[in-house]
Amino acid sequence: MAEKREEAAVENKKVVLKHYITGFPKESDVELVTTGTVRLKVPEGTTAVLVKNLYLSCDPYMRSRMTKHDEPSYVPDFIPGEAITGYGVAKVLNSNHPNFNEGDYVWGITGWEEYSLISSTERLIKIKYTDVPLSYYTGLLGMPGFTAYIGFFEICKPKKGEYVFISAASGAVGQLVGQFAKLMGCYVVGSAGSDEKVNLLKDKFGFDDAFNYKQESDLNAALKRRFPEGIDIYFENVGGAMLDAVLPNMRIHGRIAACGMISQYNLEKPEGVRNLIFLIIKRIRFEGFIVFDHHDKYPEFLEFTVAHIKDGTIAYVEDVVEGLENAPSALVGLFFGRNVGKQLVVVAND
Amino acid sequence: MAEKREEAAVENKKVVLKHYITGFPKESDVELVTTGTVRLKVPEGTTAVLVKNLYLSCDPYMRSRMTKHDEPSYVPDFIPGEAITGYGVAKVLNSNHPNFNEGDYVWGITGWEEYSLISSTERLIKIKYTDVPLSYYTGLLGMPGFTAYIGFFEICKPKKGEYVFISAASGAVGQLVGQFAKLMGCYVVGSAGSDEKVNLLKDKFGFDDAFNYKQESDLNAALKRRFPEGIDIYFENVGGAMLDAVLPNMRIHGRIAACGMISQYNLEKPEGVRNLIFLIIKRIRFEGFIVFDHHDKYPEFLEFTVAHIKDGTIAYVEDVVEGLENAPSALVGLFFGRNVGKQLVVVAND
Repeated sequence: MAEKREEAAVENKKVVLKHYITGFPKESDVELVTTGTVRLKVPEGTTAVLVKNLYLSCDPYMRSRMTKHDEPSYVPDFIPGEAITGYGVAKVLNSNHPNFNEGDYVWGITGWEEYSLISSTERLIKIKYTDVPLSYYTGLLGMPGFTAYIGFFEICKPKKGEYVFISAASGAVGQLVGQFAKLMGCYVVGSAGSDEKVNLLKDKFGFDDAFNYKQESDLNAALKRRFPEGIDIYFENVGGAMLDAVLPNMRIHGRIAACGMISQYNLEKPEGVRNLIFLIIKRIRFEGFIVFDHHDKYPEFLEFTVAHIKDGTIAYVEDVVEGLENAPSALVGLFFGRNVGKQLVVVAND
Repeated sequence: MAEKREEAAVENKKVVLKHYITGFPKESDVELVTTGTVRLKVPEGTTAVLVKNLYLSCDPYMRSRMTKHDEPSYVPDFIPGEAITGYGVAKVLNSNHPNFNEGDYVWGITGWEEYSLISSTERLIKIKYTDVPLSYYTGLLGMPGFTAYIGFFEICKPKKGEYVFISAASGAVGQLVGQFAKLMGCYVVGSAGSDEKVNLLKDKFGFDDAFNYKQESDLNAALKRRFPEGIDIYFENVGGAMLDAVLPNMRIHGRIAACGMISQYNLEKPEGVRNLIFLIIKRIRFEGFIVFDHHDKYPEFLEFTVAHIKDGTIAYVEDVVEGLENAPSALVGLFFGRNVGKQLVVVAND
């Protein structure tokens, strides 16, 4: 009787993209659907894992998946009508996979729904430290945090005393890059889109300086004032006009880690960047990266970051939305800069 | 009496920039001046070198020096009315410097004039191999050749079998990059601005394919046809629209060596490059470089290249103009693509 009950299909609310979009997303492009059901048991003969989703991550790269692409990108386009997929934290309810057992907490690629049957488990990681908030695995200890670590240490190759600039600096990635840079003994300035975020950068994350880019009529001058000696490292999260303003302010042998270009994601035609000649004049290395090329370094990152969380030398700010029904507005809000800190959605607390 | 004659001042024709310019240079912006004189002896108490100039090099980077800059670039602006400076090959007539003796042949930074008194000798190199044409030290064995070597081997880090694209491929740098790439076992395509240059790439330099970019209405499609598998290495000499077309055609973990952006040098406002998001999608390293950061590798380059010249595995095409009086048109012609191969000016044959 007990087994029978486990196998019964239960309701499974999910969040879906209604249709492919161009331009800025609207909340009405994404909707909660309550018609689906799921069996809480993994099909026989598979190595799938059945999870209950706890926390879902809203990440800028997801915008690209909302538009139809003729040629495949590094992440597939969403399929309208099916649950959105993305990073999340979940609890294993049932598993045929040798690495995952009932009761395990995992993070990785899951669905925007209450329960997910995960067949592609190569992007699923069993959570080692459960004595920190599990939501951290959508941010600080998950993909965005690991992105900050790889981008800063592996791509930027910082040296003590260098001048570091970070755009979208209060976001999930930026806030951590700034703190890593401070730990390295760098001088760190961040830009963000509101005074509240700017205060967070200075007061909470220990940035040496920060500015609200929306209040600056001349980004080049804004950077020159804050970096009279120039910028050694630019951690690029936004692209477009900010990148164009940064380029002439770079120092010789500077490095730009291209992590994201969120200012461009909703434009029908990206802005043109005109100052690329400074790559030559200043001998700059401008390097794009994607964190999952570096997965072998995750354990190293995890130990480093957990230690800093536990000794209080790394702070972290989340923007938490409760309930799957609020996931559409949380996702869309990201592209209007409405979030303050890492945007995540709570589906269930355990 | 002999010494007295040596010390007599002789006429010294020189080529000067008349005034700073914007936009495309005109021949009338540069002129031959015949009023100067020079003593053919180094002043007592200096370590200067007095040389007779033989060959002068016309190089794209010189365009930047023809415009007044508020902030210093990596090369100073020309001084109107004074002899233009640049790379050249010369014979030492008199020297107080321990490294240079009368009769030595040297290459490095000299003046666009018949005789130059060179006080800054740190950019002067004594020519080791004089059994090759000395004019080669303005190109193949000088700054452009060394630029090709550093840019290709050090910045692009090529692997056998990779797909290589070179713009301005018949120029002093491009023709050599293509041949280095063929020696490495790469697949090599070049673009150039005339059918004559395209034929040179295929017939003389052994490129696998080449095209006239002026005949292509859709550069993206032109590249896709020639690189159905994509481009691993782009050797960037032109910037602008070509760069924008290359970016979506790059392969994962591709490399772009930013050597020059000649298509932009004469524009009041550079073109905007819109496809930089592909740096992230394809995890591309886009790196600017300047050859004089790498001067310790010159001996290695020289041995490598001289060996290939002597065994006939590297070809070289020069566009030779005779006489200082023709230097203004040679220099200006570079920015209209009038040269076929390395542009140089013969001042004297010995």
